[in-house]
Amino acid sequence: MACGTPAAADAAAAAVTPDAEPDACPPPPLAVLGDDVRAPLTGGGEAPYAALDLAASAPAARAVQEAVVAYLPQYGSVHRGAGHLSRLSTELFERDRRDVAAFLGCRPDDQVVFTRSTTDSLNLLAAALPADCTVLVFETEHHAALLPWEHRGHRVVTLPAPASPGDAVAVAAAALRELPAGRPALLCVTGASNVTGELWPVAELAEVAREYGARTVLDAAQLVPHRAVDVAELGVDWVAFSGHKVYAPFGAGVLAGRADWLDAAEPYLAGGGASLRVDGGAVDGLVPVWQQGPARHEAGSPNVVGVHALAAACRALSEVGYAAVTAHEQALLRRLRQGLASVPAIRELSLFGPGAERVAVVSFVVEGHDSAEFARRLSDEFGIGVRAGLFCAHPLLRSLLAEGDAAVPGPEAGGCDDAPVQAVRVSFGAGTPVEHVDRLVSAVRRLTDGG
Amino acid sequence: MACGTPAAADAAAAAVTPDAEPDACPPPPLAVLGDDVRAPLTGGGEAPYAALDLAASAPAARAVQEAVVAYLPQYGSVHRGAGHLSRLSTELFERDRRDVAAFLGCRPDDQVVFTRSTTDSLNLLAAALPADCTVLVFETEHHAALLPWEHRGHRVVTLPAPASPGDAVAVAAAALRELPAGRPALLCVTGASNVTGELWPVAELAEVAREYGARTVLDAAQLVPHRAVDVAELGVDWVAFSGHKVYAPFGAGVLAGRADWLDAAEPYLAGGGASLRVDGGAVDGLVPVWQQGPARHEAGSPNVVGVHALAAACRALSEVGYAAVTAHEQALLRRLRQGLASVPAIRELSLFGPGAERVAVVSFVVEGHDSAEFARRLSDEFGIGVRAGLFCAHPLLRSLLAEGDAAVPGPEAGGCDDAPVQAVRVSFGAGTPVEHVDRLVSAVRRLTDGG
Repeated sequence: MACGTPAAADAAAAAVTPDAEPDACPPPPLAVLGDDVRAPLTGGGEAPYAALDLAASAPAARAVQEAVVAYLPQYGSVHRGAGHLSRLSTELFERDRRDVAAFLGCRPDDQVVFTRSTTDSLNLLAAALPADCTVLVFETEHHAALLPWEHRGHRVVTLPAPASPGDAVAVAAAALRELPAGRPALLCVTGASNVTGELWPVAELAEVAREYGARTVLDAAQLVPHRAVDVAELGVDWVAFSGHKVYAPFGAGVLAGRADWLDAAEPYLAGGGASLRVDGGAVDGLVPVWQQGPARHEAGSPNVVGVHALAAACRALSEVGYAAVTAHEQALLRRLRQGLASVPAIRELSLFGPGAERVAVVSFVVEGHDSAEFARRLSDEFGIGVRAGLFCAHPLLRSLLAEGDAAVPGPEAGGCDDAPVQAVRVSFGAGTPVEHVDRLVSAVRRLTDGG
Repeated sequence: MACGTPAAADAAAAAVTPDAEPDACPPPPLAVLGDDVRAPLTGGGEAPYAALDLAASAPAARAVQEAVVAYLPQYGSVHRGAGHLSRLSTELFERDRRDVAAFLGCRPDDQVVFTRSTTDSLNLLAAALPADCTVLVFETEHHAALLPWEHRGHRVVTLPAPASPGDAVAVAAAALRELPAGRPALLCVTGASNVTGELWPVAELAEVAREYGARTVLDAAQLVPHRAVDVAELGVDWVAFSGHKVYAPFGAGVLAGRADWLDAAEPYLAGGGASLRVDGGAVDGLVPVWQQGPARHEAGSPNVVGVHALAAACRALSEVGYAAVTAHEQALLRRLRQGLASVPAIRELSLFGPGAERVAVVSFVVEGHDSAEFARRLSDEFGIGVRAGLFCAHPLLRSLLAEGDAAVPGPEAGGCDDAPVQAVRVSFGAGTPVEHVDRLVSAVRRLTDGG
C-alpha cells in the first residue's frame, strides 16, 4: 500500500490503490479542513472524500479557521467606531493589509485594495483604467481575465494562443509594437493556467510590456496557491488573487499594485467609506468628494472577517514555505501525470507541451467517454471530486480540444461548464494526501478498462 | 442594581449603575458573540465591553458562528464541481437563497442576488436601471443610498428632508408628479434612518410611487435587524440589506426583487459564472453570451460561507421572532431615551419629532462637548463602544445639527466620520443586555456633570 493512504480507508478506496510504488510521498505540509469527510458511494458504503477540484475552490486551512474563530468575538466595525473592539478591528484590518502587501512583495507606494474575488479585482481594474487605454489579453485566459475590459468600454486586442512561453512573449511584443505610441495600454497575463496548470512567463511579459510603455496586470488566482508571487521582482504593475483559492473561502480577494490609476479613477462603488464628504443637498445638488487610497474603492463596510481569513492564509503559506508546498505538490503531480500517461484513453491537455512547468492542475480528455459522466462516476463510485467542463475558458478549450479532434463545442453547447462537456480537470494543493492522487489514477484506470 | 447587570461586572461598571429601577428588562432574545470581552480602562482595570455601535456592524450571532463552523469542513465549489462536496455546497447555496427569499416575503418571480453588502446591492441596482431612468432620493439617506445613482449616470432628483412621515409621502408625490410620463423612475427609500432610527412610511411611499408608474427600492440595512420586512406586503420592487448588520459579518449582502430590469441589464461584473458561454477568439473577436437570473450578476466564485452565514442569521431571527426582538429592543430604547432625556446637556436628534416610531438607534449632541472626545471617553473610562461623527449621512446631519444651532460642519470638516465630528450615536440590538444601556446613561450623566 502506498504511503499516505489512511489506515481507515475503506474497501472502495483500498480496492483502487495503485500497484506502483511511490517515488516520493512527503506528508501534506498544510493542514486543511474536510479531511475527515466521507462521501457516500452509489454501490453502497462510503469513501474518504478526495477533494481534487482545488483550482475551483480550496477548503479552509485549519490555521485560517482558527484565526477566524479566534477573531469573531473581537469583531467590531472598522474605521468608524470609537469603542475598544472597533479600534482593535481597525488595527487588525490595516495590519492584515500590510501583511498581504509584504506577502506579495509590494513596492512601498503600492496599494492593496480588498475586493470580493479575483473576478472583482479585475473588474475594478477595468473600471479604473484611463478611458483611452487599450488592453491586450491572450484568448487562453479565464473569462474573468478575458471579459472585464470590453465590458467597461475599453478597446481590447485579443492575442492568439501561443505555442510556447517564448512564443507568448513574441506574440505580445508584436501586438505592443502596433499600438499607438503615448497612449496607455495594459497587458493582462495569467500566472498559471486554470486549465493546464502551465506557468506563463510573467516576468518576461512584464518586461516586454514595459519596453513599449504598457503596464501589466497578473491574474494570480492559480499561482498564489502554489508559488510565491513577488510583484516587485516580477515587475508587474498589479496582481489579483482570491482568498478562496488559497484556503480562505470567506469572500475576500485582492487587487494590489500601482496607486496612480486607482486614485485617478472614479470610485468602484459609490457609498460610505469611499466618500470623504458629501456637500450640498436637495436645493443645490449633491456633491460627493471621494477618498484617495484603498478606501476609494472599498465603499461599504469591508469584509473584515474575510480579509482576516485571507491574511491568515497568506501567513500560513509563508510559515509552511513555498519550497515545501512546491516539493509536495510536484511530487504528487509527477505521480499523477505518470499514472495518467499509462492509461491509453487519456489525452492530457497542454498548450506548451508535456515538458512545460506547471502547478498542481491537470486537465484531460477521456477518449470514448463523456467527461461529465466520467466525473460523476469518479464521485459516485470512488468518492473523488473533480471538475468536468470547459472551466470558464471557452476559447482555450476550443483550441485545446480541436488539436485532438475531439468534438468541439459549438455555440449551442452552452453553459460555462454545465452543458455538453469536454474535459476533466484534476487539481490539488498543499493539503492533499498522496492517497487522493493514487486513488484517482486507479479509478481512471478502472473506469476506462471497464468502459 | 438593575436586572440584567452581570454579576461579574467590575467596579468601573458597577459604579455607574443607574439608580432608576427598570420598567422592563427581558433577557436578550438573541445570543451573540463578544459578550465576554473586557475592555481596558485608562484609569486601570477593565470593564465588560458594551457594544453599542450595532448600526455600524453587529457581532456574529452564536447560531451564525455555529452554522459556519459546522459547514466549513463541507465547503466545496458551487455549481461547477462534480464531487460530493460541490453538490452539497450547491444545494446548500440554493437552499439558502430560497430561505432568504422566504424571509423577505419575496414574490414567486423575484430574484435574490447575493452581493457583498447593502452598498454593493444599491450599486448593482444603479448599474441595472434603464438608461433613461430618473431616481428620486431623499437627501436624508445614507451615502450608500444617495450616491450610486448619479455615479452610474442617472438623472437624480434629490428630495428635501421631510418634517413627518406624511410629509415624506407628500414630497415624494409632488416630485413624482413632475416626472415625464412613460419614462422609468425609481424611488429610493430607507426603512429606518441610520442616524435617528426613525421608521419611514415605506408602504405608503411605495404606493404613491406605483400610482405614478415608478418603482421603489427599500434600503433595509437598518430595518432588517429590528423589524420583519415583507417585500410583497410593503409593495416595494427591491430590497437591499447586509449580513453584517444582522449578526452575520461574513461579507455577504442581498439585493432581492423584480427580475425584469436585472435580466435586461449588462452583467454587474464580467467573468465566469455570469457568462453562459464565450464564442470567438483572437481571430474573430470575443463574443460573450450572458446568463439570466441571479448568476448574471454574481460573476466569480460566490461567497458561499458568507451567504450561509447570512441565511443562518435570517433563520435565527425568524426562530427568535421579531415580536421578541422588538419587545426587547423597545424596552431598552425607552430606558435609554428616558435616561438621556434627564441629562440637560443632551439633545436627541430627530427628523419626525420625539414621538416618532424608531428602531434601536439614537443619536444626540452633547452641548459643550466634542463628540469624538466624548465617545472616546465612553470607551476609555466605561468600556462602552459607540460611534461619533456624521454617520455617512452628511446632508441629513447638516440639517439636524443646524436646527439646534450646533456648529455645522463646512466643506473643510472632511471625513465620512473621521474629521471634526458633531454627534454621538448609540445603537443596539436583540443581543444587547439592559446593563449596557444603563451603563451608557450613567456614563453620560457622569461625563456631563464632570464636564
